[in-house]
Amino acid sequence: MRLLSSLLSSTNPLRHHFTSPLRNAFSFQFRNFPRLFSMDSSERSLRNALSLKQLAVEAQGDAVRALKAAGAAKAEIDAAIEALNGLKIEKASIEKQLHAVVSGAGGGGDGALNRESFRQAVGNTLERRLFYIPSFKIYRGVAGLYDYGPPGCAVKSNVLAFWRQHFVLEENMLEVDCPCVTPEVVLKASGHVDKFTDLMVKDEKTGTCYRADHLLKDFCNEKLQKDLSISSEKAAELKHILAVLDDLSADELGAKIKEYGITAPDTKNPLSDPYPFNLMFQTSIGPSGLLPGYMRPETAQGIFVNFKDLYYYNGNKLPFAAAQIGQAFRNEISPRQGLLRVREFTLAEIEHFVDPEDKSHPKFADVANLEFLMFPREDQMSGNSARKIPLGEAVSKGTVNNETLGYFIGRVYLFLTRLGIDKDRLRFRQHLANEMAHYAADCWDAEIECSYGWIECVGIADRSAYDLHAHTEKSGVPLVAHEKFAEPREVEKLVIAPVKKELGLAFKGSQKNVVEALEAMKEKEALEMKATLESNGEVEFYVCTLGKNVLIKKSMVAISKEKKKEHQRVFTPSVIEPSFGIGRIIYCLFEHSYYMRPSKAGDEHLNVFRFPPLVAPIKCTVFPLVQNQQYEQVAKVISKSLTVAGISHKIDITGTSIGKRYARTDELGVPFAITVDSASSVTIRERDSKDQIRVGVEEAASVVKDVTDGFRTWEDVWSTFPHHVSASAED
Amino acid sequence: MRLLSSLLSSTNPLRHHFTSPLRNAFSFQFRNFPRLFSMDSSERSLRNALSLKQLAVEAQGDAVRALKAAGAAKAEIDAAIEALNGLKIEKASIEKQLHAVVSGAGGGGDGALNRESFRQAVGNTLERRLFYIPSFKIYRGVAGLYDYGPPGCAVKSNVLAFWRQHFVLEENMLEVDCPCVTPEVVLKASGHVDKFTDLMVKDEKTGTCYRADHLLKDFCNEKLQKDLSISSEKAAELKHILAVLDDLSADELGAKIKEYGITAPDTKNPLSDPYPFNLMFQTSIGPSGLLPGYMRPETAQGIFVNFKDLYYYNGNKLPFAAAQIGQAFRNEISPRQGLLRVREFTLAEIEHFVDPEDKSHPKFADVANLEFLMFPREDQMSGNSARKIPLGEAVSKGTVNNETLGYFIGRVYLFLTRLGIDKDRLRFRQHLANEMAHYAADCWDAEIECSYGWIECVGIADRSAYDLHAHTEKSGVPLVAHEKFAEPREVEKLVIAPVKKELGLAFKGSQKNVVEALEAMKEKEALEMKATLESNGEVEFYVCTLGKNVLIKKSMVAISKEKKKEHQRVFTPSVIEPSFGIGRIIYCLFEHSYYMRPSKAGDEHLNVFRFPPLVAPIKCTVFPLVQNQQYEQVAKVISKSLTVAGISHKIDITGTSIGKRYARTDELGVPFAITVDSASSVTIRERDSKDQIRVGVEEAASVVKDVTDGFRTWEDVWSTFPHHVSASAED
Repeated sequence: MRLLSSLLSSTNPLRHHFTSPLRNAFSFQFRNFPRLFSMDSSERSLRNALSLKQLAVEAQGDAVRALKAAGAAKAEIDAAIEALNGLKIEKASIEKQLHAVVSGAGGGGDGALNRESFRQAVGNTLERRLFYIPSFKIYRGVAGLYDYGPPGCAVKSNVLAFWRQHFVLEENMLEVDCPCVTPEVVLKASGHVDKFTDLMVKDEKTGTCYRADHLLKDFCNEKLQKDLSISSEKAAELKHILAVLDDLSADELGAKIKEYGITAPDTKNPLSDPYPFNLMFQTSIGPSGLLPGYMRPETAQGIFVNFKDLYYYNGNKLPFAAAQIGQAFRNEISPRQGLLRVREFTLAEIEHFVDPEDKSHPKFADVANLEFLMFPREDQMSGNSARKIPLGEAVSKGTVNNETLGYFIGRVYLFLTRLGIDKDRLRFRQHLANEMAHYAADCWDAEIECSYGWIECVGIADRSAYDLHAHTEKSGVPLVAHEKFAEPREVEKLVIAPVKKELGLAFKGSQKNVVEALEAMKEKEALEMKATLESNGEVEFYVCTLGKNVLIKKSMVAISKEKKKEHQRVFTPSVIEPSFGIGRIIYCLFEHSYYMRPSKAGDEHLNVFRFPPLVAPIKCTVFPLVQNQQYEQVAKVISKSLTVAGISHKIDITGTSIGKRYARTDELGVPFAITVDSASSVTIRERDSKDQIRVGVEEAASVVKDVTDGFRTWEDVWSTFPHHVSASAED
Repeated sequence: MRLLSSLLSSTNPLRHHFTSPLRNAFSFQFRNFPRLFSMDSSERSLRNALSLKQLAVEAQGDAVRALKAAGAAKAEIDAAIEALNGLKIEKASIEKQLHAVVSGAGGGGDGALNRESFRQAVGNTLERRLFYIPSFKIYRGVAGLYDYGPPGCAVKSNVLAFWRQHFVLEENMLEVDCPCVTPEVVLKASGHVDKFTDLMVKDEKTGTCYRADHLLKDFCNEKLQKDLSISSEKAAELKHILAVLDDLSADELGAKIKEYGITAPDTKNPLSDPYPFNLMFQTSIGPSGLLPGYMRPETAQGIFVNFKDLYYYNGNKLPFAAAQIGQAFRNEISPRQGLLRVREFTLAEIEHFVDPEDKSHPKFADVANLEFLMFPREDQMSGNSARKIPLGEAVSKGTVNNETLGYFIGRVYLFLTRLGIDKDRLRFRQHLANEMAHYAADCWDAEIECSYGWIECVGIADRSAYDLHAHTEKSGVPLVAHEKFAEPREVEKLVIAPVKKELGLAFKGSQKNVVEALEAMKEKEALEMKATLESNGEVEFYVCTLGKNVLIKKSMVAISKEKKKEHQRVFTPSVIEPSFGIGRIIYCLFEHSYYMRPSKAGDEHLNVFRFPPLVAPIKCTVFPLVQNQQYEQVAKVISKSLTVAGISHKIDITGTSIGKRYARTDELGVPFAITVDSASSVTIRERDSKDQIRVGVEEAASVVKDVTDGFRTWEDVWSTFPHHVSASAED
């Protein structure tokens, strides 16, 4: 359960109750403000130098004009102009230096251009080969909706199958499958109906909608990157805004938009004040129109409402984890960033229920020795970078709150790197105190770096008992666990006993309110009252349902602590939630897997995806070297064996050159190609090394199966079979 | 693409354009009217006998009353009463016979009771073991929404994985994954916005909604089954209504509801006239509220709108098939029948695109020898039952329209029976002429018999070019295929050349309308005009955009047929669509797999699901025979090997008796149980035979893997390893 903290009104006491691990990726780069806010000293001195130089240019310009007006000698005027030009050159040089500094830090310069062109190269290949395409393209599409075409769909189903293997099967999780259509009451309890909003502004003339924070962010970035004349104070102010953008209230955002004169980007019309827009797709269930519903914004709620049954299914034992893979929906105001911010997406979520008093994990030792990039809160605040920390150390030192949370962080690391995510561009970033919900014990995001920056792809949060509490309260069904004691235990319990007769005499019609308020006191408050009553005999007591203080006398309430025997402990379990944005992971995987290499002739660049076999959309292609019935027959025999072995593959019997056929499958990330060049033996080529071995026809399928399923490595196969060096074409 | 034909107004020319393979299951039992309508002769004679006997009872009653009124002798009165009682007994006997006949035919009697109690037994087991549960139960649920709990979810993902293997991988289909949120324009083109409706009536006082046809159907069934006094003519009328229910218009349904005085079931209040209710969940895309959208009612449209890209991806070659698995949504007016009629469900759809002039299939020979229950149109009309027909014969005799359609029927048969559907309760029923859309070439439903009757679970339709045409027209993007000719071909083409000068003089401002109308003439109309112009020199011509006739003279238009050379043929492919209702298949599979057997003591019934390993939610359990550290250690070692082998399993180390532990896993349909009763060897038990073999610890996992993956049969394993006969407990 995660909501957008950034855009809730700051006056709302719930604003920090909700975090948004899968929403805030774009804004993250500005979130780490202690580091970004402290402007680089070279930038500050350059901005100051630039301001001074600008003043000098203006003064010299005035001087030139004055000389001309006074009819001074040509030599004198020329000298002044020459001085002016000198100053302009110096100014341009400072601008250039400043531009370089700003680009490096803010992402708008050459680095950004490289990222942009890389992104375009990947994107073109992905769209051309139908990894994904904008949905409903023949009808000009809908922003934020994408289709996975055949290879993308295969990658997605491989990623999900591995997720199921790695988490659900290996950890014995209880997988469930709940509907997307959700009645309002469920999302009212979770808080989504009231709080799952972004702040929106409207073009006052055309009615076009924009995200208020996007406009302010774009304005600040544009100013910082393109307008080099702004003072270092102004630059600091803009950077500060970017840093605190997520924390601005509607009023604060509105005030800044007014102050900077920001208008609608397309029309330059004035904008409305910001107001909240709920991001859920609303619908109506049944024909009456009386039962409002929403398309779920996450899959987690389906698990929480089933807690009681799942706990029973697990033999009334903790801990256990439930999992769900499914579609989720968010009606984004203005989707950006391709596959990273979409209106419908696949989530895979785990809710691990655990006794809040024992968050140890029996398998933690299996991951304790892993060492990878972690970015604890303190390092972010003090301006350090992410660094490699052994997971065991992070947990034992308390950087990561508990073993179970640590175990999942380790399992997520293994999951992502086995898919092919580059471990050097993957980090686990801890939420800062102001990002976390007040009830959360700890929260870490797996962030993957791609051309859009560091993107949050998995959120791993210890959400304590919040969600089960919320549904217990709304539904009246206790979502709790029991711990039976071997021996009954003696516990001390607070007992508050209002004396109704006395209270009735004193407060008449308000008696009930006073009684309820007394009974609702927390332990600390009650003990304080007890002490005051004992010393003073009376005490002022605020009754919120009456809106005033009343005077409570000693005779009106008895407060004591009593010892009781208890046979079991009843408690609300904590939940540790790893939540995976599958589309984001896949997009980052595409970027990390993509590379270009020159063709043999060197005249063009060929695209390759270095997907591991686990992920590759097709594991193998089968090519008859030339069009010839005998070779085709052999190809069909091998194809049949591959089918039996469960290896997805494709035959290509077109007459295209073998080099072109290899290039075509490299572009789909197919790891192996079997080429039939005789009736008895064939070659197998590995995609990235382009190395080829020669194997017998009857062995081909099983060799490919072994390397695909990970029973053998390519190196092992390479050292076993004779090598093949092709005389022509690409290889 | 399938819409509800039954409930479209009969005056609507499109009413037969839409069929509803996955919607009409419930009404099917009444659809086969020629057979049901012809009332059984014994029923007719019984109804007549009953009427006569009723008259006799009434007459004798009158006689008794007359005797009493006249003060007749007691003996005389007693004799008359005895005669009356005799008549009443005879009447009761006829009623009993009639009841038996009606129950057998209509499904309301003892057979129905057995079905009902069977259904309850399965349902209780399924819900208790969390195969599925009503969604949002703690909030009292929502009709028509269900969750799959852990074992149901595992069965579902096994079914989908096998579907993907059997269809997508083995047939090299192009799988895509499109969003559920769909903009209105797409579903406008497909016809869903205008025609995807059911007829609804409202309680005029409370506003409660009902499906009009459900109320009429319930009324007729109730009358036929419970009111034995109705005449045979009346019974025939009611049966006729049930038979034609799907074809009744809103007006006809409304008239019948009025005629029979049908009122709201709960309140007995009067009902409104029937009116259409669109079954799609509506929503709004983006923040403006200006882009209406729907949750897709099927996945097929996502494929059709991508035809152009997919055709290109396939190297611009036909035939090819695209496939999609995903959620679909239908806002049912009043969902019934548990998992069979729900508001959100998983569809798996295939769209096989093929040249309309060549619907042969290269792999048809692979399925031609299959023989299974088929129910061709003619057999349904003539009152015969479904019968076994070799598929090859059905295609060669033209019963099945073409090889490709036949191939898919065969593949669907293999798919369903491999899942565990009983082949004797599976039939392929051809649509009657009045069920099929006018454009459809042929249509067969795979129907599975369960306690609800014969349920349509897969629709296999040859939809011709309808869908691609519809989207071509709406989007303006030609969704066509090309066939390049080896040699250019000479074709005759109609040429209509309006003479604009003459037309301008005659029609001035209306010239454009006349020109367009002339150019839009179909070949037949144009050739008729040509003939008339040649004989009469002029002709009356209706211009619809002007709303009137104009007089066309010979000088105003030249019509001719010209020979042209063509290098390619451009055509809209036909589409053959197998569409699978995954939830329905799974529910039927639950019923077909369920059985009860007595416990060893014979004192209770134990529930078993005989799922094949392919489908079973867990493949294997591992039990230490007694709680003991050594055995638990062995269990863990075996568990680890099973994980490596990819076999889903569960360890149960509770101290429960081994018999109880077997019973518990039988109820989940787990096919194999490994019991650790020594440190060196273990037993493996097969669920249905309860037979046990003994194998070495290190072999256990691989034996289970082999039988689970189908590399070995249990019989083979049984004949290889020593048998184990347990002395105690269940086994």
